Amino acid sequence: MAVSKRVKFSVVTLIIQIVFIVIYTIFVDYEDSADPTNPNKDYPTPKYYPMFQDVHVMIFVGFGFLYTFLQRYGYSGPGYNILLGAVAVQWTLIVRALFFHDLASGGRVKMSPTEMISGDFNAATVLISFGALIGKTGPLQLLVMVVLEVVFANLNEYIGTEHLKVSDIGGSMFIHAFGAYFGLAVSRVLYKHSHKTSASLRTGYLSDIFALIGTIFLWCFWPSFNAGLASEDGRLRAVINTFSSLLACVVVTMAISSMLSRRGNFDISHLQNASLAGGVAVGTCANMPIKPGGAMVLGSVAAIISTLGYKYGSDILASRLKVHDPAGINNLHGMPGVLAAFGGAAMAALATKDNFGDSLYVIFPARAHNTINGTLYPEGRSANEQGGYQVAALVTTLTIAIVGGLITGLVMRIPIWDDPEDEFLYDDRDYWEISDHGFPSDLSEVRPLTTDGEMLRNSTNGDEM
Amino acid sequence: MAVSKRVKFSVVTLIIQIVFIVIYTIFVDYEDSADPTNPNKDYPTPKYYPMFQDVHVMIFVGFGFLYTFLQRYGYSGPGYNILLGAVAVQWTLIVRALFFHDLASGGRVKMSPTEMISGDFNAATVLISFGALIGKTGPLQLLVMVVLEVVFANLNEYIGTEHLKVSDIGGSMFIHAFGAYFGLAVSRVLYKHSHKTSASLRTGYLSDIFALIGTIFLWCFWPSFNAGLASEDGRLRAVINTFSSLLACVVVTMAISSMLSRRGNFDISHLQNASLAGGVAVGTCANMPIKPGGAMVLGSVAAIISTLGYKYGSDILASRLKVHDPAGINNLHGMPGVLAAFGGAAMAALATKDNFGDSLYVIFPARAHNTINGTLYPEGRSANEQGGYQVAALVTTLTIAIVGGLITGLVMRIPIWDDPEDEFLYDDRDYWEISDHGFPSDLSEVRPLTTDGEMLRNSTNGDEM
Amino acid sequence: MAVSKRVKFSVVTLIIQIVFIVIYTIFVDYEDSADPTNPNKDYPTPKYYPMFQDVHVMIFVGFGFLYTFLQRYGYSGPGYNILLGAVAVQWTLIVRALFFHDLASGGRVKMSPTEMISGDFNAATVLISFGALIGKTGPLQLLVMVVLEVVFANLNEYIGTEHLKVSDIGGSMFIHAFGAYFGLAVSRVLYKHSHKTSASLRTGYLSDIFALIGTIFLWCFWPSFNAGLASEDGRLRAVINTFSSLLACVVVTMAISSMLSRRGNFDISHLQNASLAGGVAVGTCANMPIKPGGAMVLGSVAAIISTLGYKYGSDILASRLKVHDPAGINNLHGMPGVLAAFGGAAMAALATKDNFGDSLYVIFPARAHNTINGTLYPEGRSANEQGGYQVAALVTTLTIAIVGGLITGLVMRIPIWDDPEDEFLYDDRDYWEISDHGFPSDLSEVRPLTTDGEMLRNSTNGDEM
Repeated sequence: MAVSKRVKFSVVTLIIQIVFIVIYTIFVDYEDSADPTNPNKDYPTPKYYPMFQDVHVMIFVGFGFLYTFLQRYGYSGPGYNILLGAVAVQWTLIVRALFFHDLASGGRVKMSPTEMISGDFNAATVLISFGALIGKTGPLQLLVMVVLEVVFANLNEYIGTEHLKVSDIGGSMFIHAFGAYFGLAVSRVLYKHSHKTSASLRTGYLSDIFALIGTIFLWCFWPSFNAGLASEDGRLRAVINTFSSLLACVVVTMAISSMLSRRGNFDISHLQNASLAGGVAVGTCANMPIKPGGAMVLGSVAAIISTLGYKYGSDILASRLKVHDPAGINNLHGMPGVLAAFGGAAMAALATKDNFGDSLYVIFPARAHNTINGTLYPEGRSANEQGGYQVAALVTTLTIAIVGGLITGLVMRIPIWDDPEDEFLYDDRDYWEISDHGFPSDLSEVRPLTTDGEMLRNSTNGDEM
Repeated sequence: MAVSKRVKFSVVTLIIQIVFIVIYTIFVDYEDSADPTNPNKDYPTPKYYPMFQDVHVMIFVGFGFLYTFLQRYGYSGPGYNILLGAVAVQWTLIVRALFFHDLASGGRVKMSPTEMISGDFNAATVLISFGALIGKTGPLQLLVMVVLEVVFANLNEYIGTEHLKVSDIGGSMFIHAFGAYFGLAVSRVLYKHSHKTSASLRTGYLSDIFALIGTIFLWCFWPSFNAGLASEDGRLRAVINTFSSLLACVVVTMAISSMLSRRGNFDISHLQNASLAGGVAVGTCANMPIKPGGAMVLGSVAAIISTLGYKYGSDILASRLKVHDPAGINNLHGMPGVLAAFGGAAMAALATKDNFGDSLYVIFPARAHNTINGTLYPEGRSANEQGGYQVAALVTTLTIAIVGGLITGLVMRIPIWDDPEDEFLYDDRDYWEISDHGFPSDLSEVRPLTTDGEMLRNSTNGDEM
Repeated sequence: MAVSKRVKFSVVTLIIQIVFIVIYTIFVDYEDSADPTNPNKDYPTPKYYPMFQDVHVMIFVGFGFLYTFLQRYGYSGPGYNILLGAVAVQWTLIVRALFFHDLASGGRVKMSPTEMISGDFNAATVLISFGALIGKTGPLQLLVMVVLEVVFANLNEYIGTEHLKVSDIGGSMFIHAFGAYFGLAVSRVLYKHSHKTSASLRTGYLSDIFALIGTIFLWCFWPSFNAGLASEDGRLRAVINTFSSLLACVVVTMAISSMLSRRGNFDISHLQNASLAGGVAVGTCANMPIKPGGAMVLGSVAAIISTLGYKYGSDILASRLKVHDPAGINNLHGMPGVLAAFGGAAMAALATKDNFGDSLYVIFPARAHNTINGTLYPEGRSANEQGGYQVAALVTTLTIAIVGGLITGLVMRIPIWDDPEDEFLYDDRDYWEISDHGFPSDLSEVRPLTTDGEMLRNSTNGDEM
């Protein structure tokens, strides 16, 4: 190749970081409470910082270790996760300032714990997409994706919150559904047959235990994700609803996992992933008064959808639509995100001052008398209108995600970003120094997971074992 | 079998979850502060939620990974842990409402961060019992145990707190001793000779490192466990006492572990477990003014008892009493829980207004003038009386745990719950799809850990190595 | 040997713990808010306890798992880490009382969450030094080091804060640089050729993934480390600065890592370690208004220095100076700590009331009118003077660390502390019972990492692979 891999990755990455530093130096300040020259401070650290830390662990420990499931990809999974996440967080603050703050009029960007949570949320979006591309893309390709995806994601969130004025406190639409369908669109564009047939596309006994570290931290801290940006009583409901949803979700996941196996056995990939779908499914309405029982219903339905997706859906996506989804993000983030959107829309359509109290206008500000797109609504939106807008935000999300993902995939497919050779698909040796102490290199000695050579991680054929 | 394993597990589990959802939908509300229609809210989230999250990580990451110590049980350990924990938490809120709240008189159950902590505490009880049954029971059997044990455990706690009016802030009696002796009673009923002789009953080098993840998180967050439900200055004392106890405990554990080995070597199972015994031992009196020095004494004594238990006690229990205890819960939770009970009783007997200050009546409300079982005590209980009641609560705990465990064991022994075949004891393949990539399947090539075929995990014969 | 290893370790360790218990029982009390007889309480638990817990996880999970990187040292790394840490924390409270509190005049030591953070900070100092000695020292030797190092470290911090009156909120000088150069001095004294040539001095694929657990927790929680003891707006700046620095640091680390490899591959040891150097580099000025952009510059420079250190520096240190540094603490803690010191000095020299606001006198109390060493400074120090004192504190730190380390190394070299035989260097079997299930014992079958027999962990020769 004309320019070596090492030069390209290093130079592009350093340029990105230098640009960030220049922009931050010129435009980014502390929030007022951290400004030493500001006499009037209130200290949000105790309020938002502990929840930020929970979210931070989810993004970098949770996603990072969840992505160790491939037996030969244990460095790249958490390694690319932290690299992409760190770029996404820095880039998000800038992009958000352009979309959401009055940057053009001379204002400065103010960094704060809530902005740090927003940065982590956008990192989540990107890292969800990474799940569809894991093992099939090089780090440079993924960096290209991050740069583009953060822009599309914030455009979508901007339309959803500022124009459609919808509520999505846990980001089930703006983060989970967006990240999933964006990633799947990229995966479609990059599709090669070898993506499904590589012998390295396999999990290992120990790599699956490492992945459980990620799962359990995500499961424990998800209430903080959905409650992180909620306020006061909504925050407490978000904690309780998410907690309740995830309890039901893991129980139903195990039940369905056993039911779907000929011998009644559990599939570890269901536990690793589908047991988290309840956190996604309850995300849009987490701060609404759905009660613990309602949350459990959402969590249970999400478990069923997600487990079925891992058992059957991913195979169908791959063989029919050439959308190959190695981590199953459609099952964990995509379909549960859509479910969440409809849950949020239903709650919006049922919301009254009686059942929402003062939260009605906190959660749905457009329900108050309001000026929307130049029109004065003296009574504000009706409940049904708000429900309709919630659905509209889902449609917008899916549209921008898929179109943005296709565009991004085309850019990533340009053969200058050092995508992995077929030989090094799903293999750390593509981009890492590997000592041979303990690296699982004996591929020839083991049988592939499926006999027809088309293996997906959710189709372990233990039934015949 | 008449009904296949898969049908049974799925149907029973789904029925349990559906029953939970029905009960929650009918009876469970948010606590007042999360009720959007309640005008008077105070927000306990900042106060209890961070400690809840610490406890949550202990239960699901801590116990979950502690139970990866068996080399071929790395999916089942954390997998059953989260399944059983999720069922226990949901069931606890319901059972607690029956015992502790005025549910009968039309009240509704209020979910709150403190109830979530209580749910996690009861999950701990169940998961401690699981330690005595790990590898020898199927998930359906374990679910039966959860359903019954939560009832017995709350009956015991109800008697202890409402009638005997004892203090046990960290649950050393109600959680640790109860969970341990309940589980050991179940283990006794289910005892088979193969439980001790299975070749799969062995740890592995890597599985023991995974287990250390659990240990260290439990060790770090245990102050939050003992302080979680304490108030104000008692909460701060619980943090400091537990911290102090665990510091001494890990040091003494290492000293005793070396002393007990012919070559002076450490046993990793001691570090994994006995180093936590100080958290249990200080649990009953954690919020009492025992001072850091007193906490260190308790932690040191617990370390000695627990390490000796791992070295000798488990073997004796198994061979003399046919009580097989693979995770050593008698050593980590049982004996240290009894020690804690006596520590609490001693402190109760020494408690005066001079040394406890206003905390005296917060910690021991029966010391204030009070009506107990219909009798008016104008001066309340004396210190010695309170000490006596504390011992009585231990007796009650042991009695209900053992009787409840025996009854539960008999129910679990009914041959309809798919207990594992001898061939699949301590083996994930009993209930999981296992790819053969990295699964330690070469049992024939390794020697058993002891030459007489009776192996316990704490009797590694490395001395001869 | 005259006295067996087991007797020596057990007896020495028990004596240490008994001495601690005696001292604590006589001298240590709760802080006033936890004193039940104190009527005037304010409750610092919500303010400091969550940050303490983050720091606690860093010290015991973070360092503990970071030290699993050696393939045959997976028990000793986290095991000695928790043992040494527990001794250091207990000893610190006592030593701090002698240096910082008025213990001599009859005062009592008050344990509090802030003292617990200080204890953990000193544990960090010791555990950093451990990184230079990992695998080459026995636990008894290391305990000797802990006892001496905590005294030297607190002497240094006492001089720095009480006499030189410098600011070092994240302990980059007092903890990181001190711990690094102390440990390297010890390593120099203990140097043997076999330290570099042992075949067991190697990482493994799975041990490196375990180490990533430590890395990511350290990376996530480092903002709490630097902010833990800061106050109000300084605390918020410390959070934001450390967060910003680490984001840039991990990106630049990956860029430089790829650039330094012939094939453009990443080195996992860079990700594990250099990506954290930004947390060190920003430590001294973390609470100063360096702005996020400034923090990113520091993080980026630290990444470059640290990655270069792992690639070239450790080899040079070992071959030229006989300072063998298996965990690369010079690269992660030493050089970035020196960078931090100069960053702090530069900020001190630039600090005015205009840019620091009221924080000026909080961060640099000697800038206010003040009496220093008996001389009255009516206007206090000038900015340049404060900058000079900051540099003086670095010089003092390096001097005390190196001299103290040399002395300590000489004590540790006395052949009564059971240092490991050459055969058991970097090998858990030196001091642990090891079952042979999964222990990587096939050393003869693998090639050494470098052909000249001089291997350092950062010199994997994957380039030729």
